[in-house]
Amino acid sequence: MAPSRRSAVPSFSVMDVLARADALRAQGRSVLTLCVGEPGGGAPAPVRAAAVAALAGDLGYTQVQGLPALREAVAGHCAARYGVAVDPARILMTTGASGAVLAAVVAAFDAGDRVAVASPGYPAYRNALAALGCEVVDVAAGPDARYALTLEALRETHARGPLAGVVIASPSNPTGTLTTELPAILAWCREQGVRCVSDEIYHGIVYDGAVAATAAGDPAALTIGSFSKYWGMTGWRLGWLVMPPDLARATADIAGNLALCAPVPAQHAALAAFDPASYVECDARVAALAGTREVLLAAAPSLGFTRVAPVDGAFYLWAEIGAAGLDSPTWCERLLADTGVALAPGTDFDLVDGERWVRLSFSPGREVVAAACERIAEWNYHRR
Amino acid sequence: MAPSRRSAVPSFSVMDVLARADALRAQGRSVLTLCVGEPGGGAPAPVRAAAVAALAGDLGYTQVQGLPALREAVAGHCAARYGVAVDPARILMTTGASGAVLAAVVAAFDAGDRVAVASPGYPAYRNALAALGCEVVDVAAGPDARYALTLEALRETHARGPLAGVVIASPSNPTGTLTTELPAILAWCREQGVRCVSDEIYHGIVYDGAVAATAAGDPAALTIGSFSKYWGMTGWRLGWLVMPPDLARATADIAGNLALCAPVPAQHAALAAFDPASYVECDARVAALAGTREVLLAAAPSLGFTRVAPVDGAFYLWAEIGAAGLDSPTWCERLLADTGVALAPGTDFDLVDGERWVRLSFSPGREVVAAACERIAEWNYHRR
Repeated sequence: MAPSRRSAVPSFSVMDVLARADALRAQGRSVLTLCVGEPGGGAPAPVRAAAVAALAGDLGYTQVQGLPALREAVAGHCAARYGVAVDPARILMTTGASGAVLAAVVAAFDAGDRVAVASPGYPAYRNALAALGCEVVDVAAGPDARYALTLEALRETHARGPLAGVVIASPSNPTGTLTTELPAILAWCREQGVRCVSDEIYHGIVYDGAVAATAAGDPAALTIGSFSKYWGMTGWRLGWLVMPPDLARATADIAGNLALCAPVPAQHAALAAFDPASYVECDARVAALAGTREVLLAAAPSLGFTRVAPVDGAFYLWAEIGAAGLDSPTWCERLLADTGVALAPGTDFDLVDGERWVRLSFSPGREVVAAACERIAEWNYHRR
Repeated sequence: MAPSRRSAVPSFSVMDVLARADALRAQGRSVLTLCVGEPGGGAPAPVRAAAVAALAGDLGYTQVQGLPALREAVAGHCAARYGVAVDPARILMTTGASGAVLAAVVAAFDAGDRVAVASPGYPAYRNALAALGCEVVDVAAGPDARYALTLEALRETHARGPLAGVVIASPSNPTGTLTTELPAILAWCREQGVRCVSDEIYHGIVYDGAVAATAAGDPAALTIGSFSKYWGMTGWRLGWLVMPPDLARATADIAGNLALCAPVPAQHAALAAFDPASYVECDARVAALAGTREVLLAAAPSLGFTRVAPVDGAFYLWAEIGAAGLDSPTWCERLLADTGVALAPGTDFDLVDGERWVRLSFSPGREVVAAACERIAEWNYHRR
């Protein structure tokens, strides 16, 4: 008998870190929380104003795919940002990117299908795939691959056993790196009949003129967008899925049965996310993140990390603690106990090498990150 | 090879009805929509006020299980309404009852498990179970069973092939009937090791002094509640799941991976759902629904139905069109085209007998329902 699928979903070590951080804070300690992937500031002002206005209405169910005006606005965003034409009929509004991952996996893959994920990578991909009966195939995306899935690695994996699909995130969580090979990977996927799920939740948050390519124009891919990160709307739980035409009806039927529709206050509010004033506000936050990133990268050599991934986008530093002589959960536990700085152990993101890596989120902003860097540097100095 | 799981999720005939209703409305016809399960009026005033206040905050992620204060408030509601003590640590806030069904099914059942559902019943149970790889076992819950799952029927089904679980809804959608045997069924489930998922989404909407029993006090059951119906918050997508202690950690881990957390504006707003003023507003709506139900039941004999289910709760009339000589999708199509009245064909709810039944939602209120009854009665008269 196959193992129970509930056993396929592990608890996360970062939850232990958060619990310990809360306990320290309750003791009056100064805690700097750099272990959560959440931008500060919340939704831009036009979105909040639109939400208040929407609250006067009944806020009943929308169509399964979401408000037509919102799907048109998302299509307009795709056209403006990428120059890609997306038919609003192919857009499904979802309950965050999480809802899009769920709908995509159920629609595109069957139980037993082999689906590739990057390692390190966002753990919910592997856990959702496993809970839904897919066989998760780890593809190394560490330092030797510039911290991203490569076409070569995918080809080798597919040759060892045919893949039904691959999940790509660019910029990646936890590494912050961009995949430069997305167009080539999409072409290969089409050729091989491999379904590509492209999670573009960190789009809009890139640095030094980097460009994040989209899969939204690909007729076979399932492309995920979200209001959570660039627009700072994590708790609103609103995202979208661009569905391939051949799966659009089935995907919408699945979403209707599993979710009915995406949260409606958020749908009305998000109509204002595409106002010029919202982009101005969000771009200013990305500029602030870029400043924090500079502070962090300048401090990095003093932090005792042996290697770090290039921070092309998102707001994470993926760092190797290889020379520390401790596995990352223990390292994070000691760092937190000694200094009050909370980082995420790499073991949540990489089942093979995660004990040698940690993830630092610099979304809390320049002052918190600078203070955390000072504490980590001093801690390293005393541990030598 | 097993059939693709996306083929397990059918499209609904009611969606065709809605599309036709929209088309008629666009032609300037007077359309009365009685095919959707949605109360009017929206959230009570204190909830809207709390939502406006919450919009000043960042609205970032909550804990996976939801705001502690909200889980305590839900536990308080269970204590006040049912006299049942529920540990808030067992409560998971979910993205509507839909999110609770998903988390419950993934946590409690494995692929291949046989899970019983009532027929007629809410189609998303069967479709979610099938999409998640379970074997759906229909149990007749029609006129011979007073339109509800009975212990006897469950026993017989279990004897023919062991069940891993059963999904019960009381009051039921589409029949509106209450299961009087819930305590006996829960005891039998415990004895047999069958997991009971009790969907209590229509609780709070009952008539003539009927009492809806809860499974929330059962240590093995998974009990679903929601803000959608009694509190009129369908579009907000907020519900909860009372988890059995032995599955609580696994269920929360699954929910974290599949959803992260329930919508946060709704969570903050729902804190005010338990204000006395909110109960007063919602109870007044139930009283109005009770009045509409009286209008409908008085008119029922003139509507040409051969049998109707007792309307113990919810806001549906499940009615047999047996003598009409048409299957229910065709009957609904003709009724809509001739009179502008939109009902839901029974085929969405019952794969065996659904062609002889329709569902009429009386949630649109007394005037709309009275007008619809007149049109249906006249239509029947002319069709004789």
